[in-house]
Amino acid sequence: MKLKVGILGATGMVGQRFIEQLKGHPWFEIEALFASERSAGKKYSDAASWYLTSRIPSDVSEMVIEKIDTKVIDRCNLDLIFSAIPSDIARRVEGSFAEYIPVFSNTATYRMEDDVPLVIPEVNPDHLELIKIQKENRGWNGFIVTNPNCTSIGLVIPLKPILDELGISWVNVATMQALSGAGYAGVPSMAIVDNVIPFIRNEEEKAELEGLKILGKLKENRIEFADFYISASCNRVMVRDGHTEAVFVKTKRDFSTDRVKEVFSEFKGEPQRLRLPTAPERPIVVMDKEDRPQPLFDRDLGAGMSVSVGRIRRKRKKLLTFICLSHNTIRGAAGASILNAELAREKKLI
Amino acid sequence: MKLKVGILGATGMVGQRFIEQLKGHPWFEIEALFASERSAGKKYSDAASWYLTSRIPSDVSEMVIEKIDTKVIDRCNLDLIFSAIPSDIARRVEGSFAEYIPVFSNTATYRMEDDVPLVIPEVNPDHLELIKIQKENRGWNGFIVTNPNCTSIGLVIPLKPILDELGISWVNVATMQALSGAGYAGVPSMAIVDNVIPFIRNEEEKAELEGLKILGKLKENRIEFADFYISASCNRVMVRDGHTEAVFVKTKRDFSTDRVKEVFSEFKGEPQRLRLPTAPERPIVVMDKEDRPQPLFDRDLGAGMSVSVGRIRRKRKKLLTFICLSHNTIRGAAGASILNAELAREKKLI
Amino acid sequence: MKLKVGILGATGMVGQRFIEQLKGHPWFEIEALFASERSAGKKYSDAASWYLTSRIPSDVSEMVIEKIDTKVIDRCNLDLIFSAIPSDIARRVEGSFAEYIPVFSNTATYRMEDDVPLVIPEVNPDHLELIKIQKENRGWNGFIVTNPNCTSIGLVIPLKPILDELGISWVNVATMQALSGAGYAGVPSMAIVDNVIPFIRNEEEKAELEGLKILGKLKENRIEFADFYISASCNRVMVRDGHTEAVFVKTKRDFSTDRVKEVFSEFKGEPQRLRLPTAPERPIVVMDKEDRPQPLFDRDLGAGMSVSVGRIRRKRKKLLTFICLSHNTIRGAAGASILNAELAREKKLI
Amino acid sequence: MKLKVGILGATGMVGQRFIEQLKGHPWFEIEALFASERSAGKKYSDAASWYLTSRIPSDVSEMVIEKIDTKVIDRCNLDLIFSAIPSDIARRVEGSFAEYIPVFSNTATYRMEDDVPLVIPEVNPDHLELIKIQKENRGWNGFIVTNPNCTSIGLVIPLKPILDELGISWVNVATMQALSGAGYAGVPSMAIVDNVIPFIRNEEEKAELEGLKILGKLKENRIEFADFYISASCNRVMVRDGHTEAVFVKTKRDFSTDRVKEVFSEFKGEPQRLRLPTAPERPIVVMDKEDRPQPLFDRDLGAGMSVSVGRIRRKRKKLLTFICLSHNTIRGAAGASILNAELAREKKLI
Repeated sequence: MKLKVGILGATGMVGQRFIEQLKGHPWFEIEALFASERSAGKKYSDAASWYLTSRIPSDVSEMVIEKIDTKVIDRCNLDLIFSAIPSDIARRVEGSFAEYIPVFSNTATYRMEDDVPLVIPEVNPDHLELIKIQKENRGWNGFIVTNPNCTSIGLVIPLKPILDELGISWVNVATMQALSGAGYAGVPSMAIVDNVIPFIRNEEEKAELEGLKILGKLKENRIEFADFYISASCNRVMVRDGHTEAVFVKTKRDFSTDRVKEVFSEFKGEPQRLRLPTAPERPIVVMDKEDRPQPLFDRDLGAGMSVSVGRIRRKRKKLLTFICLSHNTIRGAAGASILNAELAREKKLI
Repeated sequence: MKLKVGILGATGMVGQRFIEQLKGHPWFEIEALFASERSAGKKYSDAASWYLTSRIPSDVSEMVIEKIDTKVIDRCNLDLIFSAIPSDIARRVEGSFAEYIPVFSNTATYRMEDDVPLVIPEVNPDHLELIKIQKENRGWNGFIVTNPNCTSIGLVIPLKPILDELGISWVNVATMQALSGAGYAGVPSMAIVDNVIPFIRNEEEKAELEGLKILGKLKENRIEFADFYISASCNRVMVRDGHTEAVFVKTKRDFSTDRVKEVFSEFKGEPQRLRLPTAPERPIVVMDKEDRPQPLFDRDLGAGMSVSVGRIRRKRKKLLTFICLSHNTIRGAAGASILNAELAREKKLI
Repeated sequence: MKLKVGILGATGMVGQRFIEQLKGHPWFEIEALFASERSAGKKYSDAASWYLTSRIPSDVSEMVIEKIDTKVIDRCNLDLIFSAIPSDIARRVEGSFAEYIPVFSNTATYRMEDDVPLVIPEVNPDHLELIKIQKENRGWNGFIVTNPNCTSIGLVIPLKPILDELGISWVNVATMQALSGAGYAGVPSMAIVDNVIPFIRNEEEKAELEGLKILGKLKENRIEFADFYISASCNRVMVRDGHTEAVFVKTKRDFSTDRVKEVFSEFKGEPQRLRLPTAPERPIVVMDKEDRPQPLFDRDLGAGMSVSVGRIRRKRKKLLTFICLSHNTIRGAAGASILNAELAREKKLI
Repeated sequence: MKLKVGILGATGMVGQRFIEQLKGHPWFEIEALFASERSAGKKYSDAASWYLTSRIPSDVSEMVIEKIDTKVIDRCNLDLIFSAIPSDIARRVEGSFAEYIPVFSNTATYRMEDDVPLVIPEVNPDHLELIKIQKENRGWNGFIVTNPNCTSIGLVIPLKPILDELGISWVNVATMQALSGAGYAGVPSMAIVDNVIPFIRNEEEKAELEGLKILGKLKENRIEFADFYISASCNRVMVRDGHTEAVFVKTKRDFSTDRVKEVFSEFKGEPQRLRLPTAPERPIVVMDKEDRPQPLFDRDLGAGMSVSVGRIRRKRKKLLTFICLSHNTIRGAAGASILNAELAREKKLI
C-alpha cells in the first residue's frame, strides 16, 4: 500500500518536478494536486503549462486541481504533503496542513524556525528528532520538515565531509545559477541573452545561513549552529538547469588534493545505507576531467540527485577550492523533499 | 604629425579591436598590418573575417597585409608596434621588433620578465622606468611594454584604491568570462549553449600572479611584488564580451561600504590627470542599482575603458565583496596597450 | 522652434526606443511622457526599467510621467503624439488624442481602418491624403497615421521595387523574429533557450494583410489593395533585436539576380529625396557576402532604419528568393512612426 | 547471433550518435570503430571528446580505434559498415569497403548516383532494389545504401502522405537548423550568440534535389524523379539539436486541415509494419498545441525518430503550410542509417 500524497503548488516549476519525480515511486502515489484559485477545478493538463522535456504522466494529466483546503486531506485520505507554494502564503497554508499530516516543504518560510528540521538526509538525518519538540510546541498532529534552498544543498553536501575531515574556518562561494531557479517566467529572455545578472534577491542570505544550521549539532532539543562563516555572491547565467558554484574553503587542517578527492568519493550517508528509493548511489561524484563538472553534461548524474565536484585544488596551505554542481530543481528542490519524506518514513515518523 | 604604428596579429579578435580603437586616434595612425603567411599579401578585408559589430574602417579595409618581418619597419617608417600575436611565437617576434622600436604587447610571453614593465597606467605608471634597465640588459633600441591579461586588468584596477586605503590580506575571485576572450573560434557553440565551462587554461595562474607584480613597488630597478595573495577560479559563460568577476577581499583595516564607494568613485590616475586620449573620465564607475553591473549594459562604459563595480558589501569585519566588470577586448586588451603607448609618449619614451 | 511631442506608452520597449530615437532630433522635442496609472506621477527613471544598451537621456530621466489624459495637450502645448500603447486601450486613447492633435501610432488598432493611412514613407507617401477624409469622417482636429507591424515593414520595403519592376503573383515568407518584438517580459528565458517557437499570436494575419494595403493604390479617396497574396509563417528565435525573413516571391516577369540587386540598390523614396532627418541614405542595403544579412551585424545599418537584403537567388523562372533583415524596434516601430511624422510635417500636415 | 558492425568516422558527432543508438541494439553489435590516423591506436574515450549528454557506453569507451583499412573487415568478421566520414574521402573509402560488405552511409557523396538507393524506409523501401543493379555495375560483393541529408529527411517524410493524397505542384521551405548539424566545432559561439546565420553551404541544393529522388518512382531499374520542385532557404539558429522547417506546399487538389491532420497521423510505412527495432510507432506526430512543435520539447519524440508536425494551415485554396521538426542527428543521420540497415536485413539483403 503506497502512501497517498498531495502536492501544494502543483502547477509551478518545482510542482512539476514533484510530479515527474514521483512517477512510479514505490512508496508514494499522488492523490491530490493543489494550486491557486485560478487553476482549481481545471484538469491539470489544461491548467499547467508543462515546461519539462519529459512527458507529463498521463494519469496526472487528467487529475482535477484542488483548491487549497485542508478538507481535501480527509476526502482523499492523504498521508502527507509535498509543498512548493510561494513563501508569502506558506506560513498559513503549510501550518494548516501540518495540523493534520506531515508536510515536506521546499519553501523557505519555516526553514530557520528553532523547532523545524532543515534536513539533507546525507548530512543531518538526526535533526529529524526536532519533530517531536515541534509537535509538542505547536500541538500539531502532523509536522513540517524543510529542505534547504537549491544553492545551499549543492554547497553543503560537499562541505560536510570536508568539515568532518579538515575542519572549516570560512567559506567564500560565488554561484552561477540556472534560469529555472527563478520559476518559469522569472527571468525574461531580454534580461539574460548575452548577459549575466550578478544578483538574486534573498539568495545570498539563505546560502550564508542555512548551511550553518544543517551542519550544526543537535543538543538538548535545539540546533547549535556550525561555528564558521559562509559568504556568498550569487549570479544568474544563461543555463536552463543546474547551479554551478565556485567554492573557496579555508580549512583548519592542511590537506592534499588526493585526500580531498578520496573524502568526497567515499562520502555516504543514511540514504545510501538505507537504500532509499530516491538516494543516488554516490551523493558526490568526483569529476576527473579538468573542465568538469558542467551543467549541460553533469546535472543529471544520479538521476539529478548527485552533486558533481571537480577542479579540486589546494591553492595554498589550508586553502581548498573546487567547483560543485547540482540540479537545482531535483536535488535542489523536489528530489530533496522526497528524499526527506523517504527518510522520515524509514524512521517510522510517517 | 601622427606616429606610425604597425599591428602584429592584425586579423585576430584583439587585432581587430586595435584597428577599431585606433580609428581617428589623434596621435597614432595605422601604417602596417602584420599577420601570418597565410594572410600576407592579401587585402585586409579579404584576409580577415571582421567579427565586430562596428564597420571595418574603409582605409584599413584596402590595406595589404604584411608578412611578419622587421624590414617593414624601415619601409613604412614605423614608430611603434602594437602586438596581439599568439604567445608561442611572441618571444621571437616581439623581441625582433623591439630591437628597433617600442612594442606594446597584449601577449603574455614577456609579462613576468624582471625587466619588462607590466603596466596599467592608472595603477603603476612608474613601472615604465624599467624600460631603461630593459634596454641596457638587452641592447635594444626599442623596448617592450606589456599589459596584463583581461581578467587581471578588471580585478587590479578596483584592488588598487582598496590596497591604498585599507590594505589587503588576500583576495578570492571567481570569474564569469566572455566568449571573445577565447578568440573567434575558441569556444564552439555546442560547448557553451545551455552550459558553463568552469575552466580556462592558464587563466587562473595569470590572474593570481600578474596583479601582484602590477601592485608591487619599484625598488632599485626591480619590482617587489605586493605581499598578499590572490586565488582565482575562472569560468566561461555565454556572454559575447565583458568579464564579470565576483571578488572577496580580506582587508587589513575595517571599512564601511559608503567609504569603499567613495574610494572607488574618487579613484583617478595618470591617464586622467594627463587627459590621455583613450583614458576614460572615470576608471571605476560605481553602480547604484542592486543588480548591476551587467555585461550587456555596462561593458561599454567609458567607451569600454571603465571598470564598473557594484554590489559592494561588507560581509563581516574586514571582508569586502563586490562585482566588477570590464570589457575584455577593450580595457582588457587593445585599449590597454593603446593607453600604455599614450602614457609612454606623454612621458617622452617614444 | 521644435514641435512639442508626447509619447503614449513611454515606459515600454517601443516607448523607450521613441525616447532614444528622439534624442537630439532637429524638429521634435519630448514634452510629455504618458504611461499607466501605476507609473503616473513618478520620475521616469524610477518608473521605467531602461532595457536599452544606450544610456537613458538625462533630461528624460528626470521627467515626471503623466497620467493618460488629453488635458495634458494644452498644459504642455503638445503639437503631436507618438503612440506605443497596448492595442486593447488604443482605440479609445488614440482616438481621444486625435480629436485635438495628430497621432503617429505604432499600435495595430487603427491600421486597417478605411480612412486611416498605413504608411511607409518610402513606399506609399501619397496615402497620407487619406488624412483629410479621416478628419471629415470623424470630425477630428487631429488625425491618426499608423505604421505597419515590424514584420510587415521589413518585408514590404523590398517588395515595393520588385512589384514595380517585375510584378508579383504571390509571396511566401518565413520569419525568424527577435525577442524584443514581444516586449521586455514577453518571452521567458525558459521558453527560448535552446529552442525555437514557431508561433506568434496574430502576427501572420498582420504580415499577410498590411502589405497589401500599403502596396495598394489610392483611388477616389480609398485604398485599392494590391492584388497578390502573402502567406506568412512566423517564428521566434533567440536574438535580441532584428527580424530575419526568408522570402519567396513569384514574380510576373522573369529576371536576373543582377537586375534584382540593382533594383534593390537603386531604390529611394520621398524620405531620401526630402532628406528627412531619420531617413537612411539607403532604404535597402544589398549585402554581398553569401552569409549575410545577420541580425547581430546588420540590424543597425542606417542607424537601424535600413533594411538589409542578401542571398538573392533566382530559384527558377519567375521565382525569386532572398533574405531580408530589419531592426524591429527602430525601422519596425519607433523609427517608423517618427519618419511618418517627419514626412507629414514636410507635407505641411502638422 | 548479432551482426558485427564497424563505424567509419566514429569520433565525430554522427559517429557518436551511431554508438549511442546502437547501444543494446537487438540485431547489431559494434565490433570496430574507425577514425583518422590521428585517433587510430588510441582508446576511444581518449580519442573522442564525447559531446552527448548521454553517458559513453562503457564497452565502447575501452575499444581501440582502428585505422581506416579494409583488412579490419576480416580480422573483426564485420558484416556491415555504418559510415559518417567526411564527404571528401567518402568516395574512395566507402567504395573500398563496399567491395566486401554492405555500407550504410550518412555521407552525401554517393546519394545522387543512379545505381545507389537513397532511402527513407517509410517512404521508398522499394528503392533498395537498386542494390542488385549497383552490384552488377560495380562488381562489388557489398553495396552502398545512403540516407538523405538531415534537412531532407524531416521534410520528405511529411511530404510523402501529402503527395499521395493531394499531389504536389511545388514546395517552398525555410529551415531553422540546429548547431549540431555543423559538427561539434562547426559553429563558433561568437558566430551565433544573439544571431541567425541565413546560409549553410551546399544545404539548399541537397534539400531541393534529394527529396525528388526519394519521392521518385523506380522504373526499369532507375529512379524517375518526382515531378514537382522544392525551393529551400536554409538558416542556422541557436538550438543544440532539432531542425525546424516552415513549409509551404502547393497541392494539386484542395483539402481541409482536418483531412491533412488525419493523413499525417495515419501515415505508416514498412518499418512500422515490420516492427523494425529503431522504427518509431508513429513516423509523424501531429501536435495539437498552437505553438508546437518546438525543438526543445519535441525533438526526442519517438526516441528521436518521429517527425513532429504542427501549425497545419490552409492559407488559401491548395496552399498548405505547416511546421515540421526532426532530430537532425538521430532521424536525420545515425538513426536513419540504422533503420535502413534494419530494413535491408529484414529484406534478406544482408
